[in-house]
Amino acid sequence: MAYELYYWDGIQGRGEFVRLSLEEARTEYVDVARASGSSRGTSAMMSIMRSGSEPHIPFAPPFLKDGDLIIPHVANILLYLGPKLGLAPKEDGLRYVLNGLQLTITDFVAEVHDTHHPIATSLYYEDQKDEAKARSAEFIKERIPKFLGYFERVLQQNPQGPQHILGDALTYVDLSLFQIIEGLNYAFPKGMAGHQTKYPALSALHDAVARRPNIAAYLKSKRRIAFNEDGIFRHYPELDKAA
Amino acid sequence: MAYELYYWDGIQGRGEFVRLSLEEARTEYVDVARASGSSRGTSAMMSIMRSGSEPHIPFAPPFLKDGDLIIPHVANILLYLGPKLGLAPKEDGLRYVLNGLQLTITDFVAEVHDTHHPIATSLYYEDQKDEAKARSAEFIKERIPKFLGYFERVLQQNPQGPQHILGDALTYVDLSLFQIIEGLNYAFPKGMAGHQTKYPALSALHDAVARRPNIAAYLKSKRRIAFNEDGIFRHYPELDKAA
Repeated sequence: MAYELYYWDGIQGRGEFVRLSLEEARTEYVDVARASGSSRGTSAMMSIMRSGSEPHIPFAPPFLKDGDLIIPHVANILLYLGPKLGLAPKEDGLRYVLNGLQLTITDFVAEVHDTHHPIATSLYYEDQKDEAKARSAEFIKERIPKFLGYFERVLQQNPQGPQHILGDALTYVDLSLFQIIEGLNYAFPKGMAGHQTKYPALSALHDAVARRPNIAAYLKSKRRIAFNEDGIFRHYPELDKAA
Repeated sequence: MAYELYYWDGIQGRGEFVRLSLEEARTEYVDVARASGSSRGTSAMMSIMRSGSEPHIPFAPPFLKDGDLIIPHVANILLYLGPKLGLAPKEDGLRYVLNGLQLTITDFVAEVHDTHHPIATSLYYEDQKDEAKARSAEFIKERIPKFLGYFERVLQQNPQGPQHILGDALTYVDLSLFQIIEGLNYAFPKGMAGHQTKYPALSALHDAVARRPNIAAYLKSKRRIAFNEDGIFRHYPELDKAA
């Protein structure tokens, strides 16, 4: 049975980190909220989340359903799928190292979200714009260099070469790092100016992932939703400035 | 060889979620930054983080060292330790369910942190106090009920009874939920007023964990650092108000 990915329709959001791995592996999956038919669509997703009897209810999308098993959280889904999709190392210990890298991406993504929603998710962006400007300025000045600098360093210190974040083969974290660079370039083009020079290994990894046949085909397909201002990475010109 | 836990000295912080599991299991461990001697103390922690040769450098504490293996991030450490400490289910699929619950706690803890640092970690609390008041008000009104309501629901929908968050035995997520309630009671006593009535299963779980002999002994020991205003859960009276 195909994997079922449950995530909000209309945005890349956190679901995109899972989609990239499924697409790279050319695995059969159903993007449930975007599909039509019986047990499909956003209502099918909400019905699981609101279930009064399901013991393993997720707090929020994305979650993956594999048969009866419901797995929430991006890093957890990728931890589960990685070995099945050939996107994780065989050695058990290294899987924790890989999971640690993905969890650092999780933290970074939460900070990206808070650049436009620093006070409350329940309020509109327009109602927290001044605070968003302050938080974005700090994000560009302090947090982008801290996170991207860290991943650059991990790539450079990889004993098997800077082509991959771990070992000598593609993993789901490489795909997630591609998405991070894509998203930051979309949201903060001024803030990201010159990142190719500052983070050469990360930039090369981004380009290498974009050239992979399955990823390139996916990015051109209708399955890839365009970045927009409902997602995690939003381009608000007033929040973007040179680092 | 004893597990080595690396975390900032002087605060419970994120390290406390790991400590509680190690203490419940009465496992031998070294709290490295708080210990003295060769390869001990905060400098030993910083030297791993700043290493120019270690391939698996962590982004931030806490991290666990088990021999040569370095495992960063609370949820990842608990995923690794859970089965070894007898604090995780035997069935593989359920370990992903448990990890998903811990990752929801991770997200919640990040939001707790941002109540006092909504604009930037690099700035003082005093420089973002107005924004902290706005974020804390939303946190008390919207986020505490959303997260605690979710965990209460998971407890109530546990087919094996509301005594545990998963299955019929203690897991590391039960211990983490104890710490969440402890921390919120410390930081937001007014905001948490009446939580015993609103979240009866969660409150009962908190009390049951506190009564466990190994936890009770730990809480009375010098190893348990008191809550303070350098940690994640901070009590600033100006941020606390009734829900």
